[in-house]
Amino acid sequence: MHWHDLSATVQHDAKRTLVNFFAGALGAARHPDLTALAAVLETFSGPREATVIGRGARLDALSAATLNAVSANLLDYDDTHLPTVIHPAAPVAPPVLALAERHHATGADVLLALLLGVEVACRIGNAVSPQHYARGWHITATCGIFGAAAAAAKLLRLSPEHTAHALAMAASQAAGVVENLPHGAKNIGVGHAARNGFFAALMAAQGYTGAPAALEGPYGWARACGDTLQQERLLADLGAQWEASKNTFKPYPCGIVMHAVIDACFALRAQYHVAAAQIAAVLVRGDALLLARGDRLVRNAREARVSIQHCVAAPFLWGKAGGDEFAEARVLSDAAMAFRTLVRAELDASLPMGAATVIVRTHAGDTYEATVVHARGSLAHPLSDAELEAKVSAAASGSMPAHDIEQSLAMLWQLQNLTTIQPLMALVAGRDAVAVP
Amino acid sequence: MHWHDLSATVQHDAKRTLVNFFAGALGAARHPDLTALAAVLETFSGPREATVIGRGARLDALSAATLNAVSANLLDYDDTHLPTVIHPAAPVAPPVLALAERHHATGADVLLALLLGVEVACRIGNAVSPQHYARGWHITATCGIFGAAAAAAKLLRLSPEHTAHALAMAASQAAGVVENLPHGAKNIGVGHAARNGFFAALMAAQGYTGAPAALEGPYGWARACGDTLQQERLLADLGAQWEASKNTFKPYPCGIVMHAVIDACFALRAQYHVAAAQIAAVLVRGDALLLARGDRLVRNAREARVSIQHCVAAPFLWGKAGGDEFAEARVLSDAAMAFRTLVRAELDASLPMGAATVIVRTHAGDTYEATVVHARGSLAHPLSDAELEAKVSAAASGSMPAHDIEQSLAMLWQLQNLTTIQPLMALVAGRDAVAVP
Repeated sequence: MHWHDLSATVQHDAKRTLVNFFAGALGAARHPDLTALAAVLETFSGPREATVIGRGARLDALSAATLNAVSANLLDYDDTHLPTVIHPAAPVAPPVLALAERHHATGADVLLALLLGVEVACRIGNAVSPQHYARGWHITATCGIFGAAAAAAKLLRLSPEHTAHALAMAASQAAGVVENLPHGAKNIGVGHAARNGFFAALMAAQGYTGAPAALEGPYGWARACGDTLQQERLLADLGAQWEASKNTFKPYPCGIVMHAVIDACFALRAQYHVAAAQIAAVLVRGDALLLARGDRLVRNAREARVSIQHCVAAPFLWGKAGGDEFAEARVLSDAAMAFRTLVRAELDASLPMGAATVIVRTHAGDTYEATVVHARGSLAHPLSDAELEAKVSAAASGSMPAHDIEQSLAMLWQLQNLTTIQPLMALVAGRDAVAVP
Repeated sequence: MHWHDLSATVQHDAKRTLVNFFAGALGAARHPDLTALAAVLETFSGPREATVIGRGARLDALSAATLNAVSANLLDYDDTHLPTVIHPAAPVAPPVLALAERHHATGADVLLALLLGVEVACRIGNAVSPQHYARGWHITATCGIFGAAAAAAKLLRLSPEHTAHALAMAASQAAGVVENLPHGAKNIGVGHAARNGFFAALMAAQGYTGAPAALEGPYGWARACGDTLQQERLLADLGAQWEASKNTFKPYPCGIVMHAVIDACFALRAQYHVAAAQIAAVLVRGDALLLARGDRLVRNAREARVSIQHCVAAPFLWGKAGGDEFAEARVLSDAAMAFRTLVRAELDASLPMGAATVIVRTHAGDTYEATVVHARGSLAHPLSDAELEAKVSAAASGSMPAHDIEQSLAMLWQLQNLTTIQPLMALVAGRDAVAVP
């Protein structure tokens, strides 16, 4: 499999995944949680061979992969493979970039490894969905590690046999639970999916092995997890249908299942000019996943990003649902605290996954209702390339000068022509960046 | 909880666990698999603050914890908490030792942290047993990570609240599957249980959090794994009954469920003077776990250590079942290959876990039978302190001079009096050791 064997569409879809990855990673790079993580990784870091995106720092390749995966995922602004709800770039891209810096891989190598890693993560996810995530496995981490292993194996030019061993070793390291989603523990899970998948490939290169049936065997990963691995879904249309082409990109930095809620609120606001002060109560109706993930009290920014209540508050209070609206200052403001108490959520089993209905009742007694089935950013309404660029530019504005952002985007869209990614990584490292403490 | 609050029995049991740990770690330290792992860890290692046992080398504390956990577990010569079949010292002791070197902890601190880590790992194991292991989770890794996190938290002097967060973060990193047991993937799982539990404690110290119900919540670890966390077993007799006192130590470097098989063969050999050349067929009868884990073809040393067939071959062919009898030269010898084909295994549901019956039929047509219910090394027949010392001495003989071994053992039995463990670690680093490549 070579980059030039792929169709232009698939090539472009792979690039969109990588462009969007940088929005997440650059947007979160200077978050205090990243500074705390960097402090630990720095203490134990070996040779500084890989770029820490947006922090103007370098770490050893395994540590950089850990940290870049956490930053890509931290603010819930990443990509989403909707059939599985995997956010594949966060675990897969960081080992690819770190290895590419270390081994001077070409831009085309990077894109191909990313594409294949996303493919492996999402196909394994397909094969255990929907039960796996529903039971409590954080599928981005548990399946992401296979993508990280596969992508690293590709860049390391491992044989198919060695790659299979890397995947089998990943099976003994796949972890992450949904209960931890509103906590830093989630990020550690995703960071370690990137690192430990990468590590599995490094060990496979050293001759370490895993079981031939590590995933599907009687005592393998799928059965231990409580799943039946649907093997026909693993391989269906392999090489013809690409999972990266089903990858979507979030317009709002919050849980993907919240996006229809936000769009419905924007629609009500635009259509009926409903202002926050007029609102007496809001009812949100959605499917079981939305209710299970999103009906919660909000005590901090993490919880706001997975809160139905806050995702209603933001559009009505501020007319926006961007980084600022999900940052602590606004999340814990009196206005938001008060508004969220007006919002109630209810199951509507007739709605498909990802859809939501929002019903607003005003103090005057009027009722307005909007239903969104395909949210902005979904496959039916994908972000355009220009919107993706705008997303990256906004996210990167805190750590990169505008000119560097423009240049990085230009490089990303032409990545297949770069003989090395060092110039790109030098830019996305960030300038005027805080030093890692 | 302080060391001097513990009874002399519990104190001694904690020491026995640590003494036995060094037999495993020193015995495997120069195995080629460790050299391969060291090559990768070395490449990415930060400051060399911690000892790599038996290899005359140092690595950063996280990497040393990884490697020492792998060496402790590699040759299946470790301790066993029989109620859960967890081998607790391999994931728990290495972060304790690495942190103690880094932070100049006392010998009493080390012993207490180890004791508490073993307690946490085994109590969580109790609470999900026997289903968890039976379904395919490699319980040494999946529960060991909680012990590693707890032990590291104790040495880092984290508050109870921070310690709870460390455990919750461990829940998003707990991994390892039984299918991989005959492969290096198993060791990576155990090594990362040590490392990632340690990492969870480091992140808790930085303020990272996990969910309050990360283990027992509706989307927590236990349910995701398919288990019900038996919470009453988590806390029963806490502080009165110690799991470390139920820890046992293997006389033979192979799967614990094989030990009754080996003892039965030794008994037949001693009682009836049956020689290998006389044997026409051997039938081994055992419980479901023995059959599930042990009835297998042998293609390498790893498989021999979990093979009923090889565990019958060793006593009859060589009159021993030590390191040499499970090393590749003997495992792949013509004599062993031929003998193993004579051995058949069969379920006997009436036998308790850990028991086995061996029935030998000779070419002359005689039949001899022996049943062992409590194998050597079990709680009913524990290894004496002198036998433990002999086990360490034999294991360490390849990497330490006899005088250093004696001195290390003397220090270990008096560890509570050491104000720092540096002198011990300097000895167990090994002399004349190969440099890590």
